[in-house]
Amino acid sequence: MVNETQQSCSGSSSSRSDGSSSGSESSKDNSRCSTPVLDAERHERLREKMRRRQDAGDKWFSLEFFPPRTANAAVNLISRFDRMGAGGPLFIDVTWHPAGDPGSDKETSSMIIANTAVNYCGLETILHMTCCNQTKDDITGHLQKAKRLGLKNIMALRGDPAGEEWEEEVDGFNYAVDLVKHIRNEFDDYFDICVAGYPKGHPEAESYEADLRHLKEKVFAGADFIITQLFFRPETFLKFMKDCQAIGITCPIIPGIFPIQGYHSLRQLVKLSKLEVPQEIKDVIEPIKDNDAAIRSYGVELAVSMCRELLDSGMVHGLHFYTLNREVATTEVLKRLGIWKEDPRRPLPWAVSAHPKRRVEDVRPIFWASRPKSYIYRTQEWDDFPNGRWGNSSSPAFGELKDYYLFYLKSKSPREELLKMWGEELTGEESVFEVFTCYITGEPNKNGYKVTCMPWNDDPLATETNLLKEQLEKVNRRGILTINSQPNINGKPSTDPIVGWGPSGGYVFQKAYLEFFTSSEIVTALLKVLKKYELRVNYHIVNVKGQNITNAPDLQPNAVTWGIFPGREIIQPTVVDPVSFLYWKDEAFALWIEQWAKLYEEESPSRMIIQYIHDNYYLVNLVDNDFPLENCLWQVVEDTFELLN
Amino acid sequence: MVNETQQSCSGSSSSRSDGSSSGSESSKDNSRCSTPVLDAERHERLREKMRRRQDAGDKWFSLEFFPPRTANAAVNLISRFDRMGAGGPLFIDVTWHPAGDPGSDKETSSMIIANTAVNYCGLETILHMTCCNQTKDDITGHLQKAKRLGLKNIMALRGDPAGEEWEEEVDGFNYAVDLVKHIRNEFDDYFDICVAGYPKGHPEAESYEADLRHLKEKVFAGADFIITQLFFRPETFLKFMKDCQAIGITCPIIPGIFPIQGYHSLRQLVKLSKLEVPQEIKDVIEPIKDNDAAIRSYGVELAVSMCRELLDSGMVHGLHFYTLNREVATTEVLKRLGIWKEDPRRPLPWAVSAHPKRRVEDVRPIFWASRPKSYIYRTQEWDDFPNGRWGNSSSPAFGELKDYYLFYLKSKSPREELLKMWGEELTGEESVFEVFTCYITGEPNKNGYKVTCMPWNDDPLATETNLLKEQLEKVNRRGILTINSQPNINGKPSTDPIVGWGPSGGYVFQKAYLEFFTSSEIVTALLKVLKKYELRVNYHIVNVKGQNITNAPDLQPNAVTWGIFPGREIIQPTVVDPVSFLYWKDEAFALWIEQWAKLYEEESPSRMIIQYIHDNYYLVNLVDNDFPLENCLWQVVEDTFELLN
Repeated sequence: MVNETQQSCSGSSSSRSDGSSSGSESSKDNSRCSTPVLDAERHERLREKMRRRQDAGDKWFSLEFFPPRTANAAVNLISRFDRMGAGGPLFIDVTWHPAGDPGSDKETSSMIIANTAVNYCGLETILHMTCCNQTKDDITGHLQKAKRLGLKNIMALRGDPAGEEWEEEVDGFNYAVDLVKHIRNEFDDYFDICVAGYPKGHPEAESYEADLRHLKEKVFAGADFIITQLFFRPETFLKFMKDCQAIGITCPIIPGIFPIQGYHSLRQLVKLSKLEVPQEIKDVIEPIKDNDAAIRSYGVELAVSMCRELLDSGMVHGLHFYTLNREVATTEVLKRLGIWKEDPRRPLPWAVSAHPKRRVEDVRPIFWASRPKSYIYRTQEWDDFPNGRWGNSSSPAFGELKDYYLFYLKSKSPREELLKMWGEELTGEESVFEVFTCYITGEPNKNGYKVTCMPWNDDPLATETNLLKEQLEKVNRRGILTINSQPNINGKPSTDPIVGWGPSGGYVFQKAYLEFFTSSEIVTALLKVLKKYELRVNYHIVNVKGQNITNAPDLQPNAVTWGIFPGREIIQPTVVDPVSFLYWKDEAFALWIEQWAKLYEEESPSRMIIQYIHDNYYLVNLVDNDFPLENCLWQVVEDTFELLN
Repeated sequence: MVNETQQSCSGSSSSRSDGSSSGSESSKDNSRCSTPVLDAERHERLREKMRRRQDAGDKWFSLEFFPPRTANAAVNLISRFDRMGAGGPLFIDVTWHPAGDPGSDKETSSMIIANTAVNYCGLETILHMTCCNQTKDDITGHLQKAKRLGLKNIMALRGDPAGEEWEEEVDGFNYAVDLVKHIRNEFDDYFDICVAGYPKGHPEAESYEADLRHLKEKVFAGADFIITQLFFRPETFLKFMKDCQAIGITCPIIPGIFPIQGYHSLRQLVKLSKLEVPQEIKDVIEPIKDNDAAIRSYGVELAVSMCRELLDSGMVHGLHFYTLNREVATTEVLKRLGIWKEDPRRPLPWAVSAHPKRRVEDVRPIFWASRPKSYIYRTQEWDDFPNGRWGNSSSPAFGELKDYYLFYLKSKSPREELLKMWGEELTGEESVFEVFTCYITGEPNKNGYKVTCMPWNDDPLATETNLLKEQLEKVNRRGILTINSQPNINGKPSTDPIVGWGPSGGYVFQKAYLEFFTSSEIVTALLKVLKKYELRVNYHIVNVKGQNITNAPDLQPNAVTWGIFPGREIIQPTVVDPVSFLYWKDEAFALWIEQWAKLYEEESPSRMIIQYIHDNYYLVNLVDNDFPLENCLWQVVEDTFELLN
């Protein structure tokens, strides 16, 4: 959005009632919702969320990113999405780089980065799209793809003309307004549309006033809100906003904020945007141009004071940040403004995807708890998602996990680091036990490295799992190699900082769960012990060949997390589902080979140890159904060890 | 089944694999069930239930009734179904009386009585059907109607010929086997089919051996099991059974037991069935023929000893009783045999209907708790029933309750009795408060009559409601006229004798609920008080005109009863659903007029008092969402009274 012209010969006023009705996705729903609405925002369109925040007097922010150049940079950017997403942006947007094949399936394309943000990071996302030098069919194709991927918001831009001298194309897309009209013609009200505003007027516009008229045309053609180009003085924006209102533009106008982060990036931006930097800023920056820290510190200060003035004006409800894909400066500005809100409350115990198809999803198998992106990937072809009842899902078939190196599923850590954590050389099954134990305890391994991830879990231990740390350590040391667990919870408030989720005033519950790999010798003893526990403990035990031992009634799922809330039906977001377990089993066993064994040379002893475990161990899950009593699963394991001795 | 011929010219062996696959209704289901199976039997066909009981070594019984002559007798018979259903019959059957217009919509027809047993009493039911003197189209029409009403089992009989001398009709239905074949041809495997067996041979058969061959033909034509004509000596049945097996009849054969209940009924039966009463029985009965009690007592003794011998033989797993629509003798035999099993365990907190369409139903609004037959009636046109989530029901439209005098919905008590209970003459609203209070306390009213039913509740107070008796009395006295309530329950075992339901090993929960009529003055105060409770208490307050005050989020139902079971998803069988509440409201207000006001003369003061309440009172429901804490609803009511003082 650095260089953008918007002009139009004819402004056609749209008959659409602006934002007052929900779009085609939600209009199918009748007034009764089949999913208990735990998080009203989840079911709203972006423009509705904006209005709701404004009505409630809640200030908000949004973040702009551009697509990265390399696959590694993409992995980093996605981690950044997760981290910056934690601060609660109303949306993020991803720019459209015509040079970078933006509509393609490349890991680094605008389309795929936006797709990842929506589906895997659960962020409300706007995809930029330019129309200059593209055919109608190209544009329609991009929009169809975006819709298919679950993107619901488009920033409609003209884009930079190809040649030096720009010329109108007959019947082509010459202005952003043409793209807005095209979207409304072809996709009705499906997308929320954003357009660009220029507080100083577009550099190519005949005049400031003419530019305002063009903006009005874009809005009347169907745009829902405006994000502005960056500016350096709050009064620039406030005047622009008043001028917009004066000519009848009533939709939200969001100021674009650019925290100065360095001398060169500022110069580059100014060159591209043809904006003039005010003398008072130049005066400060020039003397410290080689001191990055000082410039950033000044930039933060400047941004904070400008944002405060904007918010204090009462005319501004949201702030849009040009992050330049960097984290520190923007985060600091947001924290100082007090609008960075790390909300410990979760709508559900797992991170919700923002794809509109998944809006009813409120139950998942527990198995993918540490690999949610893999779960989303493997269920992306589903036509509907389980809604409260796992059995209601019409397509329980899981997609193949064909490529373990799919960029958003692979480990964040490079091979060398993994070898340091998991052992350059394994000497036996016990060295594998050791790796699991170190991961649980957080203690360094014998070579002095901390084990911060495992093939089944790319992140350090969850806070909740920490509640079980002591027991987990004990059992891993003895070859019960745990990969997933949760304590039992008998009615804690939904606002509990560790195990709480959902709206306040509710109560959350859990059945104790334990999932681990272990040897056939231990399984034999375990099965004897489990007889004593009868119905109290449900188990599924399976090896890589699919030999399956269970006491689960029929193929029924067992709800292991549920919540009771005021005025709502019961929510049961996590189940132990026997059918899904067999799909998870394939993935869980494959990770031994794909992520661990393959670190070593073929035929090497280390690789053969992992291969042996893969071929001979069992994957076991245990549920203690008596959630009001003390978790008996540790006793089950202890009894098993006792029997073995 | 008193006089029945079965002969056939050709015996065709059916290719149907006998009972091993489920029928057309259940074959649509795949292996994953979308409803947690709380009660496996509920999803089985009768022949599967029979086999399961036999495999488990459980002895069972069934009960035969005939359609009553009058509507009043029908109401009594239905009460008998409810009472005798409590003993756990595997099924009941209703005979087909050609004289009584058996396929019609009359309250007393075989079809409608069987319909009531299945749908309203939740009993597995066999409808008898005869084919003699009927056209194919008539028969097909009856069968289609039976299917539509949810009947799944047919007893295929020939019926009595019309004239003195019986003649075969060309192309007509001459024998029961023709009806069996017709059912299998036209309805495939939809129905379970029962046929009659004659331990002494049919009186019209050429010989005992010929009769056995006819029976075999009926079985090979597609019958699933056999019920026998009555007999007087156990050895008669045991010989018959061995003879059946010897010629290749392998399906279940159920002995028909006739406890002698009186001299005249025995004589009548013997005459119709052309059976001979053994001399040793005649010798006992003749001397005491005028002493009904003595005869019945002898009959019970005789039946018990015969049943014991049959069960002890190891060849008999179930006993079929000819009740003659009487309760005492059969119940006593069953109790003495130890196979009358009043199982306090309920699969769900409400009585489950046996209609196959309703097999997935596992959630209902709480409002009809005391009027389940009305709920079933009003939802009979639904194509699907809520399964786990109330919102999943595709047709939340309730049928009109057009005729309050629909025989199975009207009060069991006659007008005079109701007047004694509810007052011959009302002197003001307070006399209405008094009626409500007497119903709660069980104390006689000032005229010395106990109030054992109310327009909203045809039965005395439920055991569970008794837990709240003291508080209920207090508030009714002051004009909070309660019609429905439940205490809060925070995780009691599912086997709890009062509030438990579902399989053992589970935990049940409830939110406290209170529903009442009250004056607008009290409502005004109540609303002020409720503000203090914020989200803790959800309320719906509505008057007869539909003015509706609520703090429920959107139109979401509030789950007020739920259960957590080993290896299963959460079950939430009762909800407070805001949409259904408006349908219930119509019914609840109408009951004031239809059942109460209309007891009095038009324009009489008593009638005007009820009319005033109907026109001016509000119907209120309150839910305390904080189920782990002490029920706050009594405090809410107390605060309201305090505010009023």
